[in-house]
Amino acid sequence: MRISATPYRTIWPLACGAVRVIDQSRLPFEFETLDLTTLEDAAHAIRTMVVRGAPLIGATAAYGLALALRQDASEARIAEAVQVLRATRPTAVNLAWALERVRAAIAHLPPGERAAAAFAEAGRICEEDVAQCHAIGLHGAEIIRALAQQARRRINVLTHCNAGWLACVDWGTALSPVYVAHDAGIEVHVWVDETRPRNQGAALTAFELGAHGVAHTVIVDNLGGHLMQHGEVDLVIVGSDRTTAGGDVCNKVGTYLKALAARDNGVPFYAALPVSTLDWSLEDGRAIEIEARDPQEVTHISGRTAEGALERVRVVPEGSAALNLAFDVTPARLVTGLITERGVCAANRAGLAALYPERAA
Amino acid sequence: MRISATPYRTIWPLACGAVRVIDQSRLPFEFETLDLTTLEDAAHAIRTMVVRGAPLIGATAAYGLALALRQDASEARIAEAVQVLRATRPTAVNLAWALERVRAAIAHLPPGERAAAAFAEAGRICEEDVAQCHAIGLHGAEIIRALAQQARRRINVLTHCNAGWLACVDWGTALSPVYVAHDAGIEVHVWVDETRPRNQGAALTAFELGAHGVAHTVIVDNLGGHLMQHGEVDLVIVGSDRTTAGGDVCNKVGTYLKALAARDNGVPFYAALPVSTLDWSLEDGRAIEIEARDPQEVTHISGRTAEGALERVRVVPEGSAALNLAFDVTPARLVTGLITERGVCAANRAGLAALYPERAA
Repeated sequence: MRISATPYRTIWPLACGAVRVIDQSRLPFEFETLDLTTLEDAAHAIRTMVVRGAPLIGATAAYGLALALRQDASEARIAEAVQVLRATRPTAVNLAWALERVRAAIAHLPPGERAAAAFAEAGRICEEDVAQCHAIGLHGAEIIRALAQQARRRINVLTHCNAGWLACVDWGTALSPVYVAHDAGIEVHVWVDETRPRNQGAALTAFELGAHGVAHTVIVDNLGGHLMQHGEVDLVIVGSDRTTAGGDVCNKVGTYLKALAARDNGVPFYAALPVSTLDWSLEDGRAIEIEARDPQEVTHISGRTAEGALERVRVVPEGSAALNLAFDVTPARLVTGLITERGVCAANRAGLAALYPERAA
Repeated sequence: MRISATPYRTIWPLACGAVRVIDQSRLPFEFETLDLTTLEDAAHAIRTMVVRGAPLIGATAAYGLALALRQDASEARIAEAVQVLRATRPTAVNLAWALERVRAAIAHLPPGERAAAAFAEAGRICEEDVAQCHAIGLHGAEIIRALAQQARRRINVLTHCNAGWLACVDWGTALSPVYVAHDAGIEVHVWVDETRPRNQGAALTAFELGAHGVAHTVIVDNLGGHLMQHGEVDLVIVGSDRTTAGGDVCNKVGTYLKALAARDNGVPFYAALPVSTLDWSLEDGRAIEIEARDPQEVTHISGRTAEGALERVRVVPEGSAALNLAFDVTPARLVTGLITERGVCAANRAGLAALYPERAA
């Protein structure tokens, strides 16, 4: 998508053989890119959240493996690089998947051809992600278009966290329908949930919508219910970290509260996700183990001072405990539909099976 | 309640004729008191939120009027003082009520007796608030006691915002049942919603519970739904800024989302409030106009740096709009009951009429 009218992706190869990424750890206040030239550069970028978002982490790891093989493409080096990259974010399923895919694509090749083949495979992973996200956007934009034709006014979408292009290679998942609709000339405005504790909404979603020129307003996570009570939200679109075959949606903590408010006020609630996010082995989302993160993400907040410096401040008294669980699960009964790269379906096994007959068998 | 084992109120008269308050603008990181000796001192304390919370603002205004009359207790001076104090927080109903009450108590007296009578009336306003809040606590604690006897373990209460003793003269409203239960030896633990954007939960509720020795854990506003899904919340108690005769509860924004989650998970949801909060003239809470506050409360956060300085940081990109509505309305159908100084009742006109027959007529 665009930043100040220039089209960008979150990661792209340079002619010199390096890989360039947007340094997301400095957003929204500074826009900088960073060049990755070695395995360690790529591992460091993932570890320090220069890049974040499951698809982008996968793409960065794939390129990281390619970078690792430029001097030495032996079996031992491949194994070492995979180990280093996997250890950067041990729970990221997409990261492991991307590494295995690159490894499989080069395993049968002589060492001299492996680096180039790895780069090519990393590139294909990126292109497929872009195509998948764009397809999600095309399907989801039809929902926005239908609402706009009915209402004959600007459509208000509420989203939680950042499931935008910054989390992917381009387009995003939850925000892809918004970009497709906006680019097609449909008037759309986004209510951006701040998304405590890590503020990905206030920081990243607000930044990328603003940079692309999409109208948006940042709100605290507490406000969405009131807005829905007063007809100010036409639909909710969120991303998903994991969706069960039964249609339960695991996503950033607080998503469930918005789904409850949507149901209570007759507002459609959609999760947008690529098929890779589906856990076909799991029916009931209550079985998903929720990641407990550092309580300091709750007790401290980072931002920019009036002087322009980045500063971290404590907002909870010393001596008060804090609990930081990263996700919650929205039961399928509250989900109007799932927006996938193959179309929109009901949030249940039958709906998913109709779109993915080869997986549901 | 206690701060480091010493009993405190939020406001109390000194022998010298001045009035001492806790400087809440420095909490939770610094505990300081401030002495008010003039009308302007009192007005400044209200205006700058050294004191906050409807009952405490009323008490401070009452004492402020008394302080104003120490040198000059003429009709003109009374009128001037009332005008100055009312202008500090124009929408605070309790403030206007307290001023009118003091004025009525002194209107018939000769000027020489007015200052002393005003001090006495301010003192009565404080004592009545303490008695009222304590009564709310006694009634509400019975709910906690019954849950504890049934569960035979520690009871987890979730609260939103600060409806504690710091908002009143002592005890508080939503937290009074917690203090009464705790002091009676019932094991109770409080989930403290951070309460964005002004963070009254993370700052004030966490501070006062910690200072009194009540177990508590600060959570982001997004987490309560997940905790309720997993049986970690036994009941919700919130305060109220205004409750309609029909039982709709207007309270800090985000309360409605917690009420929805409580209903979805079978968790009892109570609002604790004195009768003065009831708006007998209004049935439907949707008619309540919601205060729009400065968007900077959303785009900026204050806290303490590692060096101990208080610092304000921006957390939303420049150029992104923010909307800051302070309250929402929880419909009566989601409210298990109202905890008042006369007892617990259903959140509807019949329930309230049974407790307040003289008002419901």
